[in-house]
Amino acid sequence: METIFTTDRVRPLLKKVRHFVQTELIPLEKGFSHHQLDELIPLLEQKRQQVKAAGLWGLHLPKEEGRSGPLGHGLTLCEFGQISEELAHAPFFGHYVFGCQAPDIGNSELLHQFASPDIKERYLTPLLEGDIRSCFSMTEPEFAGSNPTRMATSAVRDGNDYVINGRKWFTSSADGAAFAIVMVVTNPEADQHRRASMIVVPTDTPGFSIERNIPVFGDVGQGWFSHAEVTYTNCRVPVSNLIGEEGMGFRLAQERLGPGRIHHCMRWIGNAEKALDLLCKRAATREIDDNIMLGEKQFIQDFIAESRADIDASRLYVLNTAHMIDKVGAANVREAVSAIKFFVANSFLRVLDRAIQVHGALGITDDTVLSAMYRHERGARIWDGADEVHKQNLASSILKKYGLDVKKKARELQEFRRMMAAEQL
Amino acid sequence: METIFTTDRVRPLLKKVRHFVQTELIPLEKGFSHHQLDELIPLLEQKRQQVKAAGLWGLHLPKEEGRSGPLGHGLTLCEFGQISEELAHAPFFGHYVFGCQAPDIGNSELLHQFASPDIKERYLTPLLEGDIRSCFSMTEPEFAGSNPTRMATSAVRDGNDYVINGRKWFTSSADGAAFAIVMVVTNPEADQHRRASMIVVPTDTPGFSIERNIPVFGDVGQGWFSHAEVTYTNCRVPVSNLIGEEGMGFRLAQERLGPGRIHHCMRWIGNAEKALDLLCKRAATREIDDNIMLGEKQFIQDFIAESRADIDASRLYVLNTAHMIDKVGAANVREAVSAIKFFVANSFLRVLDRAIQVHGALGITDDTVLSAMYRHERGARIWDGADEVHKQNLASSILKKYGLDVKKKARELQEFRRMMAAEQL
Amino acid sequence: METIFTTDRVRPLLKKVRHFVQTELIPLEKGFSHHQLDELIPLLEQKRQQVKAAGLWGLHLPKEEGRSGPLGHGLTLCEFGQISEELAHAPFFGHYVFGCQAPDIGNSELLHQFASPDIKERYLTPLLEGDIRSCFSMTEPEFAGSNPTRMATSAVRDGNDYVINGRKWFTSSADGAAFAIVMVVTNPEADQHRRASMIVVPTDTPGFSIERNIPVFGDVGQGWFSHAEVTYTNCRVPVSNLIGEEGMGFRLAQERLGPGRIHHCMRWIGNAEKALDLLCKRAATREIDDNIMLGEKQFIQDFIAESRADIDASRLYVLNTAHMIDKVGAANVREAVSAIKFFVANSFLRVLDRAIQVHGALGITDDTVLSAMYRHERGARIWDGADEVHKQNLASSILKKYGLDVKKKARELQEFRRMMAAEQL
Amino acid sequence: METIFTTDRVRPLLKKVRHFVQTELIPLEKGFSHHQLDELIPLLEQKRQQVKAAGLWGLHLPKEEGRSGPLGHGLTLCEFGQISEELAHAPFFGHYVFGCQAPDIGNSELLHQFASPDIKERYLTPLLEGDIRSCFSMTEPEFAGSNPTRMATSAVRDGNDYVINGRKWFTSSADGAAFAIVMVVTNPEADQHRRASMIVVPTDTPGFSIERNIPVFGDVGQGWFSHAEVTYTNCRVPVSNLIGEEGMGFRLAQERLGPGRIHHCMRWIGNAEKALDLLCKRAATREIDDNIMLGEKQFIQDFIAESRADIDASRLYVLNTAHMIDKVGAANVREAVSAIKFFVANSFLRVLDRAIQVHGALGITDDTVLSAMYRHERGARIWDGADEVHKQNLASSILKKYGLDVKKKARELQEFRRMMAAEQL
Repeated sequence: METIFTTDRVRPLLKKVRHFVQTELIPLEKGFSHHQLDELIPLLEQKRQQVKAAGLWGLHLPKEEGRSGPLGHGLTLCEFGQISEELAHAPFFGHYVFGCQAPDIGNSELLHQFASPDIKERYLTPLLEGDIRSCFSMTEPEFAGSNPTRMATSAVRDGNDYVINGRKWFTSSADGAAFAIVMVVTNPEADQHRRASMIVVPTDTPGFSIERNIPVFGDVGQGWFSHAEVTYTNCRVPVSNLIGEEGMGFRLAQERLGPGRIHHCMRWIGNAEKALDLLCKRAATREIDDNIMLGEKQFIQDFIAESRADIDASRLYVLNTAHMIDKVGAANVREAVSAIKFFVANSFLRVLDRAIQVHGALGITDDTVLSAMYRHERGARIWDGADEVHKQNLASSILKKYGLDVKKKARELQEFRRMMAAEQL
Repeated sequence: METIFTTDRVRPLLKKVRHFVQTELIPLEKGFSHHQLDELIPLLEQKRQQVKAAGLWGLHLPKEEGRSGPLGHGLTLCEFGQISEELAHAPFFGHYVFGCQAPDIGNSELLHQFASPDIKERYLTPLLEGDIRSCFSMTEPEFAGSNPTRMATSAVRDGNDYVINGRKWFTSSADGAAFAIVMVVTNPEADQHRRASMIVVPTDTPGFSIERNIPVFGDVGQGWFSHAEVTYTNCRVPVSNLIGEEGMGFRLAQERLGPGRIHHCMRWIGNAEKALDLLCKRAATREIDDNIMLGEKQFIQDFIAESRADIDASRLYVLNTAHMIDKVGAANVREAVSAIKFFVANSFLRVLDRAIQVHGALGITDDTVLSAMYRHERGARIWDGADEVHKQNLASSILKKYGLDVKKKARELQEFRRMMAAEQL
Repeated sequence: METIFTTDRVRPLLKKVRHFVQTELIPLEKGFSHHQLDELIPLLEQKRQQVKAAGLWGLHLPKEEGRSGPLGHGLTLCEFGQISEELAHAPFFGHYVFGCQAPDIGNSELLHQFASPDIKERYLTPLLEGDIRSCFSMTEPEFAGSNPTRMATSAVRDGNDYVINGRKWFTSSADGAAFAIVMVVTNPEADQHRRASMIVVPTDTPGFSIERNIPVFGDVGQGWFSHAEVTYTNCRVPVSNLIGEEGMGFRLAQERLGPGRIHHCMRWIGNAEKALDLLCKRAATREIDDNIMLGEKQFIQDFIAESRADIDASRLYVLNTAHMIDKVGAANVREAVSAIKFFVANSFLRVLDRAIQVHGALGITDDTVLSAMYRHERGARIWDGADEVHKQNLASSILKKYGLDVKKKARELQEFRRMMAAEQL
Repeated sequence: METIFTTDRVRPLLKKVRHFVQTELIPLEKGFSHHQLDELIPLLEQKRQQVKAAGLWGLHLPKEEGRSGPLGHGLTLCEFGQISEELAHAPFFGHYVFGCQAPDIGNSELLHQFASPDIKERYLTPLLEGDIRSCFSMTEPEFAGSNPTRMATSAVRDGNDYVINGRKWFTSSADGAAFAIVMVVTNPEADQHRRASMIVVPTDTPGFSIERNIPVFGDVGQGWFSHAEVTYTNCRVPVSNLIGEEGMGFRLAQERLGPGRIHHCMRWIGNAEKALDLLCKRAATREIDDNIMLGEKQFIQDFIAESRADIDASRLYVLNTAHMIDKVGAANVREAVSAIKFFVANSFLRVLDRAIQVHGALGITDDTVLSAMYRHERGARIWDGADEVHKQNLASSILKKYGLDVKKKARELQEFRRMMAAEQL
């Protein structure tokens, strides 16, 4: 879909990426299961080389990066979003092969902006080259992920080191990563939003332990396709591994969020396009009675029309938000950044569900990629803030302009409850 | 909401229009009912003069138009769409006072492009000035409006005249109009899409009769706020009243549709914004228990967040479609033109329903404009092609690219049924 | 639909009622508008005499009632619910002609149980006979109807009289009523649930004034088809007009609610059946192309199937709830009494909306009863507790069994806010 | 939930079953994955013995069955449905441990009614005792399961044998089964509904081959928890293995369907109750901020209330349908049998999705049973007729009463297309 956001710069790149994805990556999908990632890795590394050779590696990067010459194309977030959609037509390999897979893309953006030259040298450079992988360690099982100001993992300063203790889960891609960026409480007495910090922890640090890859919808995954439960036990790293300053953790998490939101949403849109494409192929070729094709049925036409509109509206919503981030910064379009999260995640999951339904029994098997897409992405409505949290935030922000400060009233209540709880002790 | 579509040319106009609507028009809404339009007309005419004086009349017009000097601003469809949204904050008067109300706006676009100089002189010029009103007479009670190739009203040529006979309904604004553009069968033997023509019929022509203003949701309306049932009985007009050529009726209807769709959709978006504004005001000020406001409730927050996303996604979808029409013509973005119709109509009606619900008993009364908006716009999912028709068309167009020609198969069936029916006679 | 709830006693009654409704009442619907109720009243009174003659008057009444002989049939609530559904096939006249229209039915149940013999003699007896009408005056414009413990209308004792002052609205059917049952604060210092009382106020009492019939969706209505805004200005009635005891108002409101809920829900189910019937008739007879009927389209089939399931599930849910009320009392099935309210109101409004959509432009006109049904019943999701209130109550009741007392926590918050507000003074 | 359907006979059984499920089965769920069924089997066999000892084995059976004494309780379908719901609180083991798991329950009902004494002796008796398992082989990958009159697998008579060739899939529980009941075309020239037959095929018959257990949502399963793709290659069985008569296949499939539908629906209702129970536990115990529990949030309350109503309405709908089957036979309540399928499957999947959402990241892991329930039951809207097929059938049946025979018109079209296709050859 050509939109107003399709610039002359990005148009030829989109075409090349689309071609590569169609011819080199989609054929690899057949029969792929997450358990077999190891077997596929050599082939994917080879594809990465092709991508680099074609000058398509790291399309999210600014122009000047790169050890052995210029890497990026200096695309805007809005332009890269369109690339990201194309990559998502190969949901399991696309971003990896082009060197812009989560969580590495977010981590590299973070390090690029806030890490010391030394940290950049040791971690960012090989990360950008695809020589190593990384993970991001924030959510804890005992605390609602929706409230990133609450966590138990702590880093206590001891000489020139931080000593880290705690338990994290959904530390995605920890399996095989070279380092983690971990969110920890460093300043427990500070104001709620100034307590946490982010620290780089190499995964070979003693005390860093992957307890398990968490089975998600029956799948423990492997390598970058996995979500680990990780413990930090007296895990000691130099103070210089801190990103930015102490207490900046929450702010860094917010910074990571704006572009991250666009990446997520555009991936879902690409996934949704793929699902709709499979739906239409099925509808056009499945005979349900002599000479009567599935696609002649209005039930199916309804699915197609609703999906087309869901996806196209979603794309424009996300790209306009990316465009505004490019123009005025994420902090100034926070409402849209919240809104696209739940709007697009729900649109996508509806499209995917329709595609499964149209495939009938085939749709729930692993003979198509649809069921794996579902297992892999049902979390879209949960990760990175559940729908309900984003809706509450969005509505609160809107109501504030009408003179009702919902959050302030909620804080008073919370204060009151803390008081009550304290009295009961 | 500032979007990528907000050009420097339209930005100051939007500001002026918004101000006028807020200060001059919205105050007129209080206690307005459709039955009292007559009483209000003198006041509205006065507002029209103010609009003209401010150079804001006929913002949809190209620059060169106008009897007494330049009228228009040469806005693109996409730019005017944004104006239209602003006008819709005064749902009952906005477009009228600014001289761009339906069906006159569509009729003037049609006459401008296809009418003879004489017709333009006699009908278009006073129409653009707001000296007269017009109506558009297409739908017939006995035929599904979704299929504009089927109709019974005919024009038979007799010398230099057409003699028109038939019954139309939902001829909106016929009450008080100076002329109708009527769609009639002139060439019954031609191919299905070449049978009809459009003819200008002055409403004082003998045989033109308004049978009634049709009560819609309990409201018969008045003047341009009404939908008439009209009969044509041996209604005789000169052949020169034909618009374009014989057999062009269906094509003209299609031409009228592209921009018309944008006008409808942007009006709904403006209406939806107004409904959401009322919703938020209520949520922020209605106390439901001591010091507890309605807006603190998550049920209401859900309504607000969903509405915000529904509206913003809809706006971008419509404006991008308008932008593409401006750029490549409506014929090349037919899928989007279908999709926005049902997508936006449904988004709007959901927002409106939530606003009614949040107002409680007040919401169903006429003490706010919400219930009148509902009565006036429930038809959004019906007029101009029901949701179901647009979805079927959109899906058929998509499936054709996958090799399944749904419409061709349906035509075969239809042919077969006609054959069967003929045999039974 | 014959269900397990269709007893041998009710089956023949259902058949008679259905026949009467079909042959005597539905023909009156044609062209009826709420404004013309007056013209229709003589005819309806005549139908009432026929109903009485057929022994079908007041089917909700216990057997022993009636001035001039036995009136009722001693039906259970569950059995009467099925009658009520049949009556609702004539949405505007059914219950009235059979003497069981709201709010009289609820008022008579209340007086029957709680009023003094004298009040019964003066008000209940003629009410049961249909000689007079009554109204119920509870909701106030300034207070959320969802919270019946908050109201400003007061009754102050002065000798043997109460002196009543305040403003009520949605006092349905006040226009033409002989008396109101009004809910007033008599004991402002008592516990929240013991402040209010219910008092009978004859409408000819000085100080009782109908300010207006409130326009609802454009319709001010008339007679028992209207919702009044009423003021009470030093309105003086004898203390003996109190129903039950002082402070019982809230409890009486609750008592009124259980059976009232069943009445509402079964009326909606009957209305929904009527809407579905009209939908199916249209689908089976509307030709949309040569020899192709609307009902051949799966979009329409989807509407029909969803509606059939929505209605049938709703009916069983309500009748089982009525059966449980008959067996163990409303207080013991409070969750179901909450749940059916929002479940059935939403099912019904969905069915009705589908019926409107299938009728196309005709559906929004007053040429069918559908649009009037909508205007008359959109309030279903609002009256008698909005959806959101019932959902909150239901969930709170469920969560209490899991050890979380949501309401207690909310009360603490409220207490805290009152405290805070007091401090600010 | 005690309903009108809870008879005195079934009430004590429900209590016993509930107790057994809670104390003996639910503890086994912890950490269970489908891959490990083998390890669990010995334990489950032991539980089966306990069930038999408690006289609770085969509660679906008529009283007289059983090799070593009376097995069943002679429950009605409606009564057993309530048992089935209780068993479904242990979604993976309940029905198996109590000897009434699909597809064995359906197969035994079929054999009981239609098989020869010899077949009964050899297959039904050990099946009822739980000594062997069976499978049902009907769906083929190349044909839409929604249309059971179309299939390619054939049985050709050769002397006293049938020689069977073809490919089936979703032959559930074939892995480890002793025999299959296979649906084959025996009479290709007969009328569409008289072509197929059902034949018993022991799985050790040469030519019977399980090609694979089909991975469903990433899970290949094992044993009775699996769905096989099966080929029949010159598979030879004696003619006496025919169930009923030649050409009865379609009718037998229909017979199997009525009770099967109730079994499915009640299992989903039990599953839904389990999901809602987990949802409520989570809501009541998950702290999202200091002293603020998840269940205090209205978003969650909305989920709970909607789920409660969805489940309770579904249960009554299914039990009333079962009651009517008991009373007048499935053939006379075909509309309800269609309607409950899509109504309940959708209600259930909505409840399940809400439960996953409320659990946040935990909800998509295998640390609760929710994600496994989803993977195992997403097919609910597909198996046994997709939603769309049931809706079409239901609507067609309704429209027939209004004089529109949709199916007849569709048959004409089909005939026409066959004709057209033949001409093209």
